[in-house]
Amino acid sequence: MGNLCECLGNFFGRKNTNVRVSLPAVCFIWQIAMIVLFGIFIRYDEESDVKKWLELKKSANITSNIENDFYFRYPSFQDVHVMIFVGFGFLMTFLKRYSFSGVGFNFLIAAFGLQWALLMQGWFHSLDPVTAKISIGVESMINADFCCAGSLIAMGALLGKVSPVQLMIVTLFGVTLFAVEEYIILDLLHCRDAGGSMVIHAFGGYYGLAISWVLYRPKLHQSKSLNGSVYHSDMFAMIGTLFLWMFWPSFNSAITDHGDGQPRAAINTYLALASSVLTAVAISSMSQKKGKLDMVHIQNATLAGGVAMGTAAEFMITPYGSLIVGFCCGIISTFGYLFVTPFLEKTLKLQDTCGIHNLHAVPGMLGGFVGAIVAAFANEDVYGKEGLKRVFDFEGDFANRTPGTQGGFQAAGTCVAIAFGLVGGGIVGLILRFPIWGDPADDNCFDDDVYWEVPEEEEEEIIPPVLEYNNHMIHKHQDISESNFSVEQS
Amino acid sequence: MGNLCECLGNFFGRKNTNVRVSLPAVCFIWQIAMIVLFGIFIRYDEESDVKKWLELKKSANITSNIENDFYFRYPSFQDVHVMIFVGFGFLMTFLKRYSFSGVGFNFLIAAFGLQWALLMQGWFHSLDPVTAKISIGVESMINADFCCAGSLIAMGALLGKVSPVQLMIVTLFGVTLFAVEEYIILDLLHCRDAGGSMVIHAFGGYYGLAISWVLYRPKLHQSKSLNGSVYHSDMFAMIGTLFLWMFWPSFNSAITDHGDGQPRAAINTYLALASSVLTAVAISSMSQKKGKLDMVHIQNATLAGGVAMGTAAEFMITPYGSLIVGFCCGIISTFGYLFVTPFLEKTLKLQDTCGIHNLHAVPGMLGGFVGAIVAAFANEDVYGKEGLKRVFDFEGDFANRTPGTQGGFQAAGTCVAIAFGLVGGGIVGLILRFPIWGDPADDNCFDDDVYWEVPEEEEEEIIPPVLEYNNHMIHKHQDISESNFSVEQS
Amino acid sequence: MGNLCECLGNFFGRKNTNVRVSLPAVCFIWQIAMIVLFGIFIRYDEESDVKKWLELKKSANITSNIENDFYFRYPSFQDVHVMIFVGFGFLMTFLKRYSFSGVGFNFLIAAFGLQWALLMQGWFHSLDPVTAKISIGVESMINADFCCAGSLIAMGALLGKVSPVQLMIVTLFGVTLFAVEEYIILDLLHCRDAGGSMVIHAFGGYYGLAISWVLYRPKLHQSKSLNGSVYHSDMFAMIGTLFLWMFWPSFNSAITDHGDGQPRAAINTYLALASSVLTAVAISSMSQKKGKLDMVHIQNATLAGGVAMGTAAEFMITPYGSLIVGFCCGIISTFGYLFVTPFLEKTLKLQDTCGIHNLHAVPGMLGGFVGAIVAAFANEDVYGKEGLKRVFDFEGDFANRTPGTQGGFQAAGTCVAIAFGLVGGGIVGLILRFPIWGDPADDNCFDDDVYWEVPEEEEEEIIPPVLEYNNHMIHKHQDISESNFSVEQS
Repeated sequence: MGNLCECLGNFFGRKNTNVRVSLPAVCFIWQIAMIVLFGIFIRYDEESDVKKWLELKKSANITSNIENDFYFRYPSFQDVHVMIFVGFGFLMTFLKRYSFSGVGFNFLIAAFGLQWALLMQGWFHSLDPVTAKISIGVESMINADFCCAGSLIAMGALLGKVSPVQLMIVTLFGVTLFAVEEYIILDLLHCRDAGGSMVIHAFGGYYGLAISWVLYRPKLHQSKSLNGSVYHSDMFAMIGTLFLWMFWPSFNSAITDHGDGQPRAAINTYLALASSVLTAVAISSMSQKKGKLDMVHIQNATLAGGVAMGTAAEFMITPYGSLIVGFCCGIISTFGYLFVTPFLEKTLKLQDTCGIHNLHAVPGMLGGFVGAIVAAFANEDVYGKEGLKRVFDFEGDFANRTPGTQGGFQAAGTCVAIAFGLVGGGIVGLILRFPIWGDPADDNCFDDDVYWEVPEEEEEEIIPPVLEYNNHMIHKHQDISESNFSVEQS
Repeated sequence: MGNLCECLGNFFGRKNTNVRVSLPAVCFIWQIAMIVLFGIFIRYDEESDVKKWLELKKSANITSNIENDFYFRYPSFQDVHVMIFVGFGFLMTFLKRYSFSGVGFNFLIAAFGLQWALLMQGWFHSLDPVTAKISIGVESMINADFCCAGSLIAMGALLGKVSPVQLMIVTLFGVTLFAVEEYIILDLLHCRDAGGSMVIHAFGGYYGLAISWVLYRPKLHQSKSLNGSVYHSDMFAMIGTLFLWMFWPSFNSAITDHGDGQPRAAINTYLALASSVLTAVAISSMSQKKGKLDMVHIQNATLAGGVAMGTAAEFMITPYGSLIVGFCCGIISTFGYLFVTPFLEKTLKLQDTCGIHNLHAVPGMLGGFVGAIVAAFANEDVYGKEGLKRVFDFEGDFANRTPGTQGGFQAAGTCVAIAFGLVGGGIVGLILRFPIWGDPADDNCFDDDVYWEVPEEEEEEIIPPVLEYNNHMIHKHQDISESNFSVEQS
Repeated sequence: MGNLCECLGNFFGRKNTNVRVSLPAVCFIWQIAMIVLFGIFIRYDEESDVKKWLELKKSANITSNIENDFYFRYPSFQDVHVMIFVGFGFLMTFLKRYSFSGVGFNFLIAAFGLQWALLMQGWFHSLDPVTAKISIGVESMINADFCCAGSLIAMGALLGKVSPVQLMIVTLFGVTLFAVEEYIILDLLHCRDAGGSMVIHAFGGYYGLAISWVLYRPKLHQSKSLNGSVYHSDMFAMIGTLFLWMFWPSFNSAITDHGDGQPRAAINTYLALASSVLTAVAISSMSQKKGKLDMVHIQNATLAGGVAMGTAAEFMITPYGSLIVGFCCGIISTFGYLFVTPFLEKTLKLQDTCGIHNLHAVPGMLGGFVGAIVAAFANEDVYGKEGLKRVFDFEGDFANRTPGTQGGFQAAGTCVAIAFGLVGGGIVGLILRFPIWGDPADDNCFDDDVYWEVPEEEEEEIIPPVLEYNNHMIHKHQDISESNFSVEQS
C-alpha cells in the first residue's frame, strides 16, 4: 500500500501539501462534534456548580470555601498547562525553519486534544450511571492536559514530517487509546501512576515511535539541510526545556493525595531532575573530543529524571532514591541521543526527530518498573498501616492486595502501556499513509514554508530602510525576489 | 488644530523625537506624586496588616491562617501579573524592529498604571468614609493589574506610532477613565464582570481605536517596510500569546467568588479558549490560496474566546455554552484580521497596528452581550435560590432585582464601556496631537532606533571576530557577500 | 602565583579549555557524593511523610489537609524556581555569542547547588540532635533555591570569563559560605531577612565581585567584539528580567509568616518594583544625548527595588515606604551602570560582566540597612504587642529584645554578609587561578564556541536551500570555512 501511495504522490510530480480544504474541515467538524457531545454529556461537578456546591457544603459539613478542590490543585494545574503549551511547544522549536510549526501545531492539537480527553476520560472514569452525565472540575482539566501529553510526545517523533491534518488524527486516536489504556491500567489493574511514567510517557513514546516507523521516509536525507538548529532556535527550545524542568514537580504531584502526597511527589521529582542535569552534562561533555556540550542533550536528557519519577514520586522512595533514579536516567537518556537514535535510524529504519525514544519511551518504561519495585518493597514500618492503604488505595475490591502483588500489577501496567503504544501506533501509522493528508515530500520536510505564511527573509532586516527610497536598489531587490522564485519553480 | 501641529512639525524638517527632557520629567514627577498620594491615602488592609489581622482573627473567629484571602487569590494574581507583563509585552514584539519598544514600553506604562490604579480604584471603591484611607490587599493588586490592561490594549492600536511620553499620557487617562466607568458599571448599574469583557476589553479596545483614529497618519505607508514581522520576532510574539492563552482562566477567575466561583470561571474560560484555537486555525487556513496558516491569526484570534468569556465565565453558562462562545469568537476575530482591519484602515482612516479591534473591542463587546443573555436566562432551577443571590450579588439595594432586569443592566453596562472608550479616546487623542510629545515622523515609525540604543547590526555577529584583524579575510568575506548577491540576482 | 599561572598558560601557546575530563569528573563525583550524603542524612519532614503526617494530624488536631504547609508555600516555591532557572538564566543570555553558556551553566550550577544547599542548610538549621537526620519539606526547597541564588549572582560578575568547572567550584564554596553566614545572621544574630537582601544579594554580590577582582584579566579588551549584545539576545534577556520582576513578590514572601506576613511582603515588593521601573527609565533616558533608553538599564535596574525590599518587605514599612525604597534604588542602580561599573573597572581593576555591583551588591546592602531602620522604628502602636513578637520572632532567648536592638543587629547582619562575601570570594578567587580549570584565554572570552557545540552560522539560514545544489557555491563556502580554520590555528 505504501508503494502505491508513493507512486500516486510522485505521479503528480510533487506531493500536494495543500491543506486548505482538509485542515478547516477537520477543525470545524471536530469542533462542532465536541460542542454537541459536550451538550449531551458534560456538566460541572459539585465543586464548580453553585447549587451543588452550596448543597455539598451543607451535607458534608464543609465550613470553609478553601476546602474546595480548586485550592488544592489549581496552582499545579496552571503549571501543567504551561508545560503542555509552552514546555512541549517550545521544546519543539529547535529546528532552524520549523519553529512556527513546532509551537503552532502543538498549540492546535493540544487545544483539540484536551476537549476530546474530557469526553473520553469522562466516559471511562466518571460517567454517572444514573444521569449518563460526566462531571468535570479542576482535576478533570489536569487529567485532560495529561492525556494530551501522550499525543504531544508522539508528535516529537514525527516533527517536520507530517501535516497538521495528520497530527490531528494522531491526537484523535492518541487520546482515545490513552483513555482505554488508562482505564485498564488505573481502574482494572488498579495501578498508581500519578505522574504518568506508564500511561503518559511510555505509551506516548512508543505510540510516536511506532507511527514514525510505519511512516519511514527512505529519502529524508534530502531535507537534511533543514534538519538542524541555529543559534536562536536552540535558545527558544531552552525556554521549553526550562519550563518543563521547573514545573515537573507540579506535573507529578498535581493529582496525588491531598496533604502529604503532593509535597512528597514534588520533592522527589525536584531531586531526581536536579540529579539528571549533572549526569546529562557529564556524559555530553565526555562524548565530544574537546569536552564541548551538545545542546540536544541539555535540552532533553536533563528532563529524564522527571519522566522516570512519574510513578514512584508519590511513594516513599526516599530523597536519595530519587537522586539515584535521576542519576541513572540522565546517563541512559544522553547515551540514547549519542548512540541509540542513530542506531535505530540505521538498523530499524526509525526516524525520531526529537529523540522521544530517549526522553520519553525508555525513561517512561524505566519509571514504570521503578514504581513497581518501590511498590513491592512498601511496608507498614515505613508507611504505617493507614498510610499503606492511603498511598496505594487498598480499598474496596482491592482491600486485601499486598504491596508485593501491587508491584506485580505495576509492572504489568507498564507492559500494557507499551503494548498499547506499539500496536495503536502501528495502526494509526497505516491510516496516515493514505496519500490524502497533505504531508510534505521527502525534500520538503522540516520547512515551515509548507504550511505557514513565513515572513520575508531576515536578510532584509539588515538592509537599512533608507535604501528603499533609492529606486535603483528597489529594482535590484525586486529582481532578486523574482529570480529566487523562478529558480524555485524551475 | 491637527493641521497646525503638522505644519509646525514639518517646519523644522524632521519631527523632534528627543524625549530626554519630557520622559524623565514625566517619570519623576508622576512617581513622586504617587509617593505623596500613597502616603496620604494608602494603607494595608486587614488581611495584610499584622495588628489588624490578629484582631480580625479574634473578632471573626478565624481558626486558620489559610483563611486569609491571600491563599484564595495569590496564585491567580501571579498568573495575571505574567499576562500583563510577559503576555501583553511579548505579544507586541512581533514587529521586526520594534520589539524593544513593544516589551519595554509595555513594562513602563504597566508599572506606572498599576500604582495610579490602586489610587483611582481605591477612591472609587474602597475609600473609608471615616479615615479617608484606602485599604489595599491581594485583590487590590489584581484589580490594579486589570486596570492597566485597558491601557495596554489601547497601546496595541498605537504600537509604533507614538512616543513613550504619549503612552504614559494614554495610561494616565486610561486608568482614570477605567476607574470611573468601572464604578458606574459595577457599582451603580451593579453589573457582574469578573473577567472584564466590558470594563477591560470593550473599553480598552474602543479607547485605543478612538485615539488611533484621531492620530491618523496619512503617510504611514512610508514606514511600511518596518511594519511587519521577521521569523524570530514572530516567535517572541508566540511567547506572549501562549502566556495569555494559558493564564486566561486565572484572569477570568481571579476575583470571582471563593469556592465554586473560581473553578467554574476557570473551566469555562479553558474551554472557550480551546474552541477558539480550532476555529481560528480553520479560518486562517481557508483564507489563503494554498491553505497556509498566518501567524497573525494564530497569535491573536486564538485568544478571542478568553476575551468573550470575561463576563459570563462566572455564570452557569454550561461547558458547551463556553465552547460555542469560543467557536464563534475564533471565527469572528480571524475574519476581522482578514477583512475588517483593512476595511477600517481604508474607509475609516483607522490604523490599528495589532488589530485590537478584532481581539479586544469586538470580542469584548460580544462578551458583554453574552453575559447579558446568560444573566437574563438565569433561574432558580439551575442556580438554586441561594446560588442566584450569590452569583449576581442580589443583596442590599439590589435584593429585589430579577435575572431579567440584571440582563438588561449588563447590556447597558457594555454600552457604557464602549461609550467611555470612544469619547475618552477621542479627547485623549486630541491631547496627544500637540506637537510636543516627541512622536516619530511618518517615515520613522515602527523603529526602535528612535527611542532605544539599538545594538549594532546582527550582520556583524556572523563575521568571525578573528577576521577583524585580518584585512585579507575581510576582503574575501566581502567577495562572498557580493557573489552571493550576484548569484541571487542572476 | 598568578603570574606563574599565566606563564604556564602562555607557554603552551593557547590556554587549554578542554574540560572533557574535569567537567564530567566533577559532575559525577559530586553527584555521587550527594547521593551518599542524602542517604545518610536526608529524610522527608512530617508534612511530606505519609506516616508522620497522619500522626501529626492526630496529635496536633489538624482537621483538614489544606493546613499542610504545601498549600501555604508551594505556589511561591514554583515562582521562585522560575526565577532561579528562567529568571537568572535568561538574564544572562544578553551577550551576542554567550547565550548557551548563560542559560546552560546557570542550569547546571543551580541543579548542583540546590542539592548541596539542602545538606548545608540542613546541617546548620534543622539537624535533629537525636537521630542526626535532616527533615526536608517545601520550605527547604525554597531555601535551597534561595541559597543557589547567591552563587548565581556571583556568576553574573564572572560571565564569559570562566569555565563551567570553575562555576561549579564557585557554587560549592558559595553554598557553603552561604549556609554559614546565614546561620550567623539568622540564628546567632537573630536577624529577619525573608527575601535575603543581606544573606542572598549583599553576600552573593560581594562574593562575585571579590572573585572577579582576583581573576582580573588585563587583556580582556581582546574579546571586546563579543562583549556586547545583539538585537535578539537582548530580547531573550528581557524574558529573564520580566520573570524575575513579576515573581519577586513571591521571592520576598515565600518564607514569611503564614497569614498576614505573606500578603504584606508581596504588596511591598510589588510596589517597590513598580517604582524602580519609572526611575530607571528616567535616568536611562537622561543619560543619553537624544534621550534614548539603554537596554542594560531596563534589564537590570528595574529590579533593584525587589532586591532592596528583601529584608523590609515583611515589616510594616507601609506602601509609600516601599515606593520610596524602589524610587531611590532605581536611581542608584542606573547610576551604577552609567558611572560606577566603568569606574571600578578602570581604577579597581574589577571586571563585572553583568554589573552585579549595581543590581545586587549595593541594593542588597541598602536593603539590609533599610531593614535595620524599619526594624528599629517598629513599635506597638503599629504592630500591636502580639504583632511585634510575631514579626520579629521575639521569643525564647530573644523574648526581651527591643526593636531598637533588633535594628542594630540587622545592621550588623548586613556587615557580616558583606564580609563573608569579600573574604570568601577572595579565597575562592585564588583557588580559581590554578591553571587547571580550563578557563578561556583573554582573546577567547564571551564565546560559546569554547564549551559548546555551536550550530553552523546563521548566515547559512539565509542562503536559499536551493542554492546548495549548486556546486560552485558549495566550493566557495568550504573555502571560507577552511580558511577560517587555518587562521584560528595559525
